[in-house]
This record gives sequence, C-alpha cells and structure tokens, in this order.
Amino acid sequence: MLRLARLAIDSWREPVAFLNRGCTEYAAESFLGPRKVEVSDGRRSVTCVLNLVDDAALVARDALALSAHAFALLGLEEGAPVAIRRAPEPASRAALRARIAGRRLSEAEIDAVVEDMVAGRYAGRETAGFLVAAAQTLDDGEVIAFARARAERSAQIVWPDGMVVDKHSMGGIPGTRVTMVVVPIVIAHGLTIPKAASRAITSPAGTADTMEVLARVDLDAEEVCRVVAEVGGCIVWNGRLSHSPIDDVMNAVTRPLGIVSDRLSVSSILSKKAALGVTHIVFDIPVGPTAKVATRADADALARLFAVTAEGLGIAARCEITDGTQPIGSGIGPALEARDVAQVLAGDPDAPADLRDKSLMLAARVLAFAGVAEPRERAEALLASGAAARAMERLVDAQGRNPDPPGPGRLTREVAAGSSGTVAAIDCHRIAGIARRAGAPLEKSAGIDQFRQRGDRVEQGEPLYRIHAEEEADLAEAAAYAEQGSGFEVAAG
Amino acid sequence: MLRLARLAIDSWREPVAFLNRGCTEYAAESFLGPRKVEVSDGRRSVTCVLNLVDDAALVARDALALSAHAFALLGLEEGAPVAIRRAPEPASRAALRARIAGRRLSEAEIDAVVEDMVAGRYAGRETAGFLVAAAQTLDDGEVIAFARARAERSAQIVWPDGMVVDKHSMGGIPGTRVTMVVVPIVIAHGLTIPKAASRAITSPAGTADTMEVLARVDLDAEEVCRVVAEVGGCIVWNGRLSHSPIDDVMNAVTRPLGIVSDRLSVSSILSKKAALGVTHIVFDIPVGPTAKVATRADADALARLFAVTAEGLGIAARCEITDGTQPIGSGIGPALEARDVAQVLAGDPDAPADLRDKSLMLAARVLAFAGVAEPRERAEALLASGAAARAMERLVDAQGRNPDPPGPGRLTREVAAGSSGTVAAIDCHRIAGIARRAGAPLEKSAGIDQFRQRGDRVEQGEPLYRIHAEEEADLAEAAAYAEQGSGFEVAAG
Repeated sequence: MLRLARLAIDSWREPVAFLNRGCTEYAAESFLGPRKVEVSDGRRSVTCVLNLVDDAALVARDALALSAHAFALLGLEEGAPVAIRRAPEPASRAALRARIAGRRLSEAEIDAVVEDMVAGRYAGRETAGFLVAAAQTLDDGEVIAFARARAERSAQIVWPDGMVVDKHSMGGIPGTRVTMVVVPIVIAHGLTIPKAASRAITSPAGTADTMEVLARVDLDAEEVCRVVAEVGGCIVWNGRLSHSPIDDVMNAVTRPLGIVSDRLSVSSILSKKAALGVTHIVFDIPVGPTAKVATRADADALARLFAVTAEGLGIAARCEITDGTQPIGSGIGPALEARDVAQVLAGDPDAPADLRDKSLMLAARVLAFAGVAEPRERAEALLASGAAARAMERLVDAQGRNPDPPGPGRLTREVAAGSSGTVAAIDCHRIAGIARRAGAPLEKSAGIDQFRQRGDRVEQGEPLYRIHAEEEADLAEAAAYAEQGSGFEVAAG
Repeated sequence: MLRLARLAIDSWREPVAFLNRGCTEYAAESFLGPRKVEVSDGRRSVTCVLNLVDDAALVARDALALSAHAFALLGLEEGAPVAIRRAPEPASRAALRARIAGRRLSEAEIDAVVEDMVAGRYAGRETAGFLVAAAQTLDDGEVIAFARARAERSAQIVWPDGMVVDKHSMGGIPGTRVTMVVVPIVIAHGLTIPKAASRAITSPAGTADTMEVLARVDLDAEEVCRVVAEVGGCIVWNGRLSHSPIDDVMNAVTRPLGIVSDRLSVSSILSKKAALGVTHIVFDIPVGPTAKVATRADADALARLFAVTAEGLGIAARCEITDGTQPIGSGIGPALEARDVAQVLAGDPDAPADLRDKSLMLAARVLAFAGVAEPRERAEALLASGAAARAMERLVDAQGRNPDPPGPGRLTREVAAGSSGTVAAIDCHRIAGIARRAGAPLEKSAGIDQFRQRGDRVEQGEPLYRIHAEEEADLAEAAAYAEQGSGFEVAAG
C-alpha cells in the first residue's frame, strides 16, 4: 500500500494521480500511458490520469499524491493507505466501437454506454467518436433507448396526480411567449403543469428570462414541488431543475464540435420530460426560413420522431406545426415580452392578437388531453373570466414575486421603413441580433417593440419598430446594426 | 514576464504548464479551463494544458513551471523569461466542424486541418470526431489531399535517381516473405528500391522482423541513404524511418476507437511512399477469407483507391490481386521465413515454389516499370545466375550483418492430421495464433514449419506442420492451442 498525499495542484476537470518513478511498491512505469488508474483504499476509489514524478521532494517513493480535485473526490485523509491498479476497461467499449463502425445497438447496450460515459470511464475522444457516429444515424429504437437511459440517470420527480401535462416549443422565433399564457390557463382549469423553461443562449430572451421579470425562476426540485402543490404548476428555469449528468459529458463534446442533431436533441428533450414525470405533452414546431426548423418536410420528420420517442417512453404526445415566419407578439426582450403576456392575460384590447391566438390554440390542445369537450372555448373562457390572470398572480407569488419588475428601457430609437410597400418577410436572426445588441436578455428592459407584421402596409419613413435600451452605448450599437439591415423586407406595391 | 522553471513531472504525452494561482503577473484563474495556453519567450513556444498551483514551494508566484516533456519541447534554460497567452483557436476549426457535419473539404481545408492537428491545436475529442466522420466518407479527392498533407509533414528523402521503385503488400497472410526476394532481384537489375517494412503487430513476423534475422533494420534516414547509395536498395524497419507526426495524433484516436478504414489506410500508406520519394510502386492485395481483404469486390475497390490516390500524388502504381487463401512458403516466424528466402535465393530445389513464383511475378511487375521487355524472364535470370543472392549479401553487409543468425527453434512438436483427405482450407488467423504462442516474433527462432498446402492429400496421423520454440512453456502453450484447432481443414476423399 502507498501513503496518500495531496498536491496543491488544480488540474481543472481532470483528476490526476502522481507516483514517484522509483516507487517502492509498484513498477511505476507500467502505469504511465493513456489508460487511467484507479486509486482505492478498498472502499472508496477515484479514477485518475497518472503522472510520474522524478523528485522525492514532490512525491515520496512510498506515497501516492493526488491533485486537489482528485483528493477531494476520494475523500480520505492524508497518510491513508491506498492501492492503485489500472482502471477497468469500460464494459461497454465493444458496443461503443461497434456503433462507431456502424452497427445498431440494443437498448441494453445503449444503457451500458451511457452508464460508462456518466461514470467517466471513457476518454473524450471515445465519447466524441460515439456521438459523431450517432448524431445522424441513431434509429428510432436507439433514440428511445438513449432517452430512457438518460432519464433514469437524472433526478426524478414523482407527482401525486396521475396526469401531468406540458407544452414544449422548438423555439427560434423571437418573442413568442405563449408558455406564459398557456400555463396560467391550464392551471386555472385544474391540471398539473410543471413547466421547466430555458434561458436564452443565442436569442434575446428565453421563457425563463421573461418569467424572471415577474418572479424568481431558479427554484430547486424541492421548491418546485412546493409551488406545484400550492398552485398546480410553475414556470421555472430548467438549468437548476433538470440537470442530467450525461448532459455535461455530451455538451463537452457536442458544443466544441458543433454537432447539431435532431436525434440527439429529441432524446435529450424527452429524457428531461420523463424525469420531470410528464405524462402528456404538446410539441409546437414553428416552421420558417429563419426559424430552427426551415421546411415543412423537416417539421414533419421532427414531429414523427417526437411522437415515436414519446410513445416509447409512455408519454402521450401531440405535435403542432405552426407559422414560424415572424416573431409572435409585439415585444422582443424580457420586459417587453412580459408586457405582451400581461396584456393578453388582462384581456387588454391592445394585446397582440397573434400571441393570444397561438396561446389559446396550444392551451386547447393541452386541455384536450383531459377530455375537455370544447377545449378552445374552455381556454377562451378561462382567459376572459380572469381565472388565468389570477392563476398567474398565484404562480408569481408562490415562486417569489419580483417587487419591482422592470419595464421597457427608457432610451429608445425608432427604425423606419426605407420605402413604401408591404412587409414581405421578417428575418428572425436579424431581429434577435438587434435586440441582443440593445442588451437583451441580461438587461431585462432592453429589446424591440414591433409595430408591423408580415403583410402589413407601411409608408416610407413610418416606424417599423422601436429599440429600447438602458445604456446609450447599447442603443447606439443596436441602432447601427439595424441601419445595416433592419430585418424587415418591404416589397413595393 | 515569468521565470521559467521545470517540474520533474512526466505527464506522458500531454505538455503541462503550472502557474501559481496567486501569480504576480497574470490573472491565473482566467487561464484555467479546456483551452490550452501558449508559453513563449518570443521566439520559441510550446502549447500546454494549464494547471494552477496553490503552493509557492512548488511554483513561485513570479514563475511558470513546465512538465519535463513540455520543458524539453520548449528548449529554454530555467530562469528564462517567458510569457503566456491563451493558445490561438485552430484556424481550421470551421472546416473540421463542417466535415463532421458532412460537408466535403477542399485540399486547402484538409491541409489546414492536418496542420492544426500536428501542431496539437485540437483536443482529442475534435480529432476523434473528425476521423470518425472521415473514416467511411472521405472522397477520392480528400484521400489524395490528406495523403499529400501528411507527406509534406513527414521527413522527406530525395534520391539522385529519377526512378525509385517499391512494392507494398496489404499483408495478413503469415509467411509470405516475397519482399526479401523481390528487393534483391530489383537491386541486381540496377533499380533503386528503398524498402521500408513493418514489424509484426498481430502477426508472427513482419518483413522487418524476418530481415532482422540477417541484419540490422533500425536504420535512420541518413544510414538508409548511405546503404541505398552503396547497394541500390535496403530492407529496413519503417518505424524509425517513416515517422509521420500526424500518425501519433491519429493512432491515439483510431486505435482505442477501433477505427478501420481503407480510406485512412490508403492515405497513410501513400503519404509514406511519397515522403520516401517513391515514383513507381506495385501493390499486392491478397484476397482470402482470413486475409485482410476478404472478397474480390473489396480488393477491386481497394485497388481502385490505391490507383487513384497514387495518380493524385504523381506516383505510377500497379495493383495485383493475389491468392490470400493460405500462407506462402513453408516457414512462419522470423528464422523459418528467412530460411525459405535463403533457399529461393540459392536456387535450392527444396525452396518453396509458391514463394519463388509470387516473388518472381511481383519482381517482374516492378522491372516492367523500367521498360524491361520480358521482365519475368529477366527476374528468373537474375535469380538463377546468383545475382540476386549476391545483391542480398551486399545488402546484409551494408545494413550490418548479424554475425550469428538464429535458426529454427530446437524444441519441436509435430501436429498431425486427425483424418485422411485433402487440405480444404487453412485458417491464417489460427496459424498466426499458434506461431505467436510459440514465441514469434520476439523469439526469432519460434514459429511453424508447414508440410502441406491447400489441395494436398494427407493421411490420418501424418504431420501437417511442426511447431518450433526455444522455451518449453511456449511450446506447450502453442501445442495446446493447436490441439484446440490445428487451423487445417481436411475434407474426406
């Protein structure tokens, strides 16, 4: 046995063990190489990369030193007796190699690969090889198996109600805060809807960013259970709630490699829904030239994959392919979107009609799961009666009301049409880029307020939208970017 | 600037830099992460993973320490002033990602990817993603570009003669030492043939292992140039001669991932030929159920790829698809194979006819490149006159003669036919496994001496082959393995 020591070295994510080359207990050289070593006292163990040391002042000949992170993972005292051995090969390596060579895997094989990945038994190059091979060629059965293997390794929430509903949008369209209208309607009807929403990554606002204008969203699982028990639903950030250990492993590969795969995405999305205990879900797939899904054929394929995978996981699913050719609602950016939502819930005649209409349609699809005979009428009634608005107030209080919600930014600049005509197209990427330059989503009050939609008539010099910002520099940058291209295409006539 | 220090830590292939977290010159924390750092004195630089140290006794606050390997790579003295910065992003990353997503790359893009790989600018997961994507889908133009990019980064040898010939076999057939007959014939004719051969990886002997029975084979490029200038050719180990820096990077990924790809292999093989200055080459592609190439269709595809890639590199190539259904020659294992070669060169009537015949065929193909009108007759004449045997003697002397070449192992065990009939098939994998258990290739004298070939009549109890070994334990293990399956299939009648 070797004496355990700690070296005050922070090797970032990689646990490292240090052995003297002249070690008295082991042939140290035989452990040096690509294969990791397992350091153990017989009960606790940690798997490390091995470095050899030629200086007894750093590591004594009868000692084994660990980097700070590895030492903490092992959790033993300095001086504890430890042994080392070559880390066991991942049991699923033959399956991983077979997948790289193109063979389909069984459910048990995929489960074993995921298990070994989560346990850190694979090198990054092996995970990368597997994911590149899998990204475009996982078949339906593999997508289901992958989703199930991931869900089983995520924190699971079990609800007292038999029916737990959800609504998920593929996003990509700025604005479009339907979730914040759908959830209150569904709660008002009495269904359970624990909505875990994302923050913006490349967009001006995610649902979690906009909800945060009104209330706390970084709730943990325990808080979510309390809120849902009290109110019937929630709208919280998924980052704290739906953490899946396999995501860390996969994102470390897929992000730097730029891997974009519907098959991996669908398995990820549905694994999170399964872990959250969702039993019924409506998928919203917006289609448009600058939306995430560009063509109807892509949308059909994605809808089919959602349906098949959900069924494989025992989740009832319905897919709606919707118009993704332009932003929904007037506001883009957290505070402006929250204003649109408030107008719809309040029955304000100035509320964006498109936001109201899409929200009612999706809410009706969710209510239909519960056997509601005329779900659209029911959804409209819950909105008109103020029941949905009151549900939202309860929700905001339960999650933790923001006492001083920000409004639209006080600095503004209008962008006008360069010519007269009809709005022929709106470039969602461009609009998102302008809103982000104005400061969204970090600056809640920043964004864009749109005055025109596709098909609207506009005269030269009339404003198309107004940029809002909190800082002069942000406003200037957004305005300059809008001047290079407003995102609105106006066709003569 | 920081003072350069050396830490006596061997981090295997990964250069590591160590910075004190309380560094006086840099915000150390900002460098910790997946991205590497570049350590430089303004002229020389090395790219390293960064670790942070919380112990000034290990790394002072005004110092930067390097692991032993990184320190050697940088090549500066301790105390030299150095600066650090985040390593630049690989310029070819967009191309690498595009290839992973399925887009074909231009020659310039492939060159840039190879450049960044060799420079260590990619993480293992990125190299893995690229190679998995590329393994099955590189098109012909990409294979050529890849071979060229690799050749340009290998040590190049330039020969005075305009014509430099070579012969390359896909191997996989035990025995089959045609190279050691072809090269002396070609030398005797007066052509330049600098043959770089491999050692065994999974077989009982590579050409380099068998040549080593007679002479030194671990020559460096300078020694090879001297030998070739003196004799006209060589038969040396390719491991010291044809080292390609990209191989280290690629093998670290393809071996653990089990990636087998004709397209990567062909680009590798031809890059080495190009770096060695080869202008004309004959490829030998043995086909058989237990050879490397199993079907005629696979062989045709491989031959086409060799031809197209060679042409792209300006190398004249001819492919021969040959019988790979059984070992060629009687001996398997270095000393036994060397004996077969000596018999063929000596014109011994007991020499294996199949080895003589295949060698003459391939030698004739090589001579045909030089415009020899009746190349087969010329090859036979060079063999019959003893000119080839004399060329081999000069070659052995020039490379460094082994004064005491080992003969077949003194411990023997014969393996007999279990029934009477005709030898219907010989399992090359099995025969190789028995010879390796007997001690080949590390034990030069170990191996198998075959008495029967496919189609031969054999009576029950008659010996099929004799196992040779130097150690009793090896002989027992090989014999026990042969008892489980001799590798010979004898069909009744």
